[in-house]
Amino acid sequence: MAEIGPNTRLRVSPFYEATVTEGVAAFSPYNRMLMPTSYGHPREEYDRLTKGVSLWDVAVERQVAIEGPDAATFTQMLCTRDLSGQKIGQGKYVACCDHRGVMVNDPVVLKLAEDRFWLSIADSDLLLYVKGLIIGRGFDAMAFEPDVNPMDIQGPKAEALMVDLFGPAICELKFYRYMHVDFQGTRQLVARSGFSSVDGFEIYLDDSSLGPVLWDTVVEAGQKYNIAPGGPNQIDRIEGGLLGFGNEMTNENNPLEMGFGKFCRLDGSIDCIGLDALRRIDASGLRRTIRGVRFEGPQCPVCMTPWPVMAGEINVGQITSAVWSPGLRSNVGLSLIDRDHWEQGRPVTVLLPDGSKQEGTVQVLPFKSS
Amino acid sequence: MAEIGPNTRLRVSPFYEATVTEGVAAFSPYNRMLMPTSYGHPREEYDRLTKGVSLWDVAVERQVAIEGPDAATFTQMLCTRDLSGQKIGQGKYVACCDHRGVMVNDPVVLKLAEDRFWLSIADSDLLLYVKGLIIGRGFDAMAFEPDVNPMDIQGPKAEALMVDLFGPAICELKFYRYMHVDFQGTRQLVARSGFSSVDGFEIYLDDSSLGPVLWDTVVEAGQKYNIAPGGPNQIDRIEGGLLGFGNEMTNENNPLEMGFGKFCRLDGSIDCIGLDALRRIDASGLRRTIRGVRFEGPQCPVCMTPWPVMAGEINVGQITSAVWSPGLRSNVGLSLIDRDHWEQGRPVTVLLPDGSKQEGTVQVLPFKSS
Repeated sequence: MAEIGPNTRLRVSPFYEATVTEGVAAFSPYNRMLMPTSYGHPREEYDRLTKGVSLWDVAVERQVAIEGPDAATFTQMLCTRDLSGQKIGQGKYVACCDHRGVMVNDPVVLKLAEDRFWLSIADSDLLLYVKGLIIGRGFDAMAFEPDVNPMDIQGPKAEALMVDLFGPAICELKFYRYMHVDFQGTRQLVARSGFSSVDGFEIYLDDSSLGPVLWDTVVEAGQKYNIAPGGPNQIDRIEGGLLGFGNEMTNENNPLEMGFGKFCRLDGSIDCIGLDALRRIDASGLRRTIRGVRFEGPQCPVCMTPWPVMAGEINVGQITSAVWSPGLRSNVGLSLIDRDHWEQGRPVTVLLPDGSKQEGTVQVLPFKSS
Repeated sequence: MAEIGPNTRLRVSPFYEATVTEGVAAFSPYNRMLMPTSYGHPREEYDRLTKGVSLWDVAVERQVAIEGPDAATFTQMLCTRDLSGQKIGQGKYVACCDHRGVMVNDPVVLKLAEDRFWLSIADSDLLLYVKGLIIGRGFDAMAFEPDVNPMDIQGPKAEALMVDLFGPAICELKFYRYMHVDFQGTRQLVARSGFSSVDGFEIYLDDSSLGPVLWDTVVEAGQKYNIAPGGPNQIDRIEGGLLGFGNEMTNENNPLEMGFGKFCRLDGSIDCIGLDALRRIDASGLRRTIRGVRFEGPQCPVCMTPWPVMAGEINVGQITSAVWSPGLRSNVGLSLIDRDHWEQGRPVTVLLPDGSKQEGTVQVLPFKSS
């Protein structure tokens, strides 16, 4: 594709200069910012993530801060997952839906205090939805975007590096839990999480002016682990069955068909937006669900528009993300698949944009387990 | 800047293939789509817009459709402008604010029927704000994004071309009015409007499958006017004092300081979100307002992050968009300027990102009148 023309509408990550110095080769627009996705060596970046440690500028992962007396009530109303047991120090992956049960974002909710939450968002203006709901229903809560810019440190050697940086207490962190660490006299939130199928951490840098020094500090400490920069990795993401909001999840999809039924409490014990619609969808049975498709042929191109998945003459789904998997030595894609064809191993045909057809099979996700 | 890595999260304009064939050289991400901003010949594109006719893919200008019994009441609540006199067939430029009076978008409201509106939006998910408000307050209205993809035909020769395409009734259209035309047996909305300081039209193509044939039809009919593609033009925009949402207008700005006081009805005759806050701001007097800054030096770079505007040692504003104006033979920028310095002709100094300083003066907008 072509160049991006810069302007002030594209907000600049505090790690931007560092990523340019490192030789960033491709960006993906995300929440009106640019997320580095490649430094020009895709195979090395994949190997580093899966065998070493990789450093990502994911400042695009903006926070929606919700504070005030009604913050907890409001946040529960926004999420289809039961948050009643959530503790301070804990993150929860959630689906946020509209009244039709259609997803509008899939953030991670961090509970900072009984009346204070961060929603770490995917690529849509969840802040505007939250503001509309708060204003519309008159909640006693405020919502805003703080100056928080996450950096991810991902890979099997991430823990050792984080111990070097912040001390051994990091090892106690369970998945999706967070703690606070000291960085140059400031208090920073670190969670064990990240948009990959391997172990890793996210530093929610609270103060963009510290971006360059944090980057340099991590790079310097990471030299002994051969750290280098990367970004959310398409191979790892698809192999691991991690869904992208805006890729797999669009304004036509509900969380049940995306495989997030376990994150939807439909028994009436919570009240949330979309509950009635999701109960109706659940009661009538899913018409389709998210699956992998493993398919033959040479290395497939990047998926820009969905590719039809056929069973004979019947269109049974469409691939929304696809990549050549070096581990599986085949192409792998993510697709909603209709009910009659979603069992493991069902034969399908993928129609590629050049007009060619490739034989494949339906696979239960993930393609590989971490 | 670097390349954009394609993926399905970036939705594809129905004019995309045509713009690639035409040699598009740069895009700007906008509403999770790519807007062509240059075909590699900036001076020719500017001359064509200001002296001939230019064709733009502005499918990024998405519509928020609002329909239902409460649609009119709701739309008025969303907008600070008095819409009571708006007729079917009329568009109105409006500001949408949150409860603090801060702008969340600046769309054009098209009234399609007494209970049906399109909000033609700038770069933020106004649909999510609208959904939140409707759900939160329980309005009897629905909101969705239709399959509408605008194409702009801009320039002094646009009218002649539109007459060739759709007949002489086009000439009767006043600014910001729309009519329907026939295109290949379909009914399409055409407005006299567009994001430029010159005359022009927008075709709100309702059915993306017609994108390629509409493009080809316009290009073929436009040959006698030497039509060629362009995009919202930075030189024309800044010279004309047209503000960009996300450039000049951020999550810190209210419509009064952006010069949109005439679009804010604060006398209590309408009820809208942000009214109380805007009345307080109005009563206490503006602290700053939007101005032009004309400044010396060689052709300035593209503004990626705001440039401080100084009066001596005092920071009195920041330039958010700037360009070399071939007509004025100087650099021109847009900046909020503090009250004590906002009069025409006040001397200021602009601090450029390379560390250099340029002398300039404050100018009332527009730099040139159309």
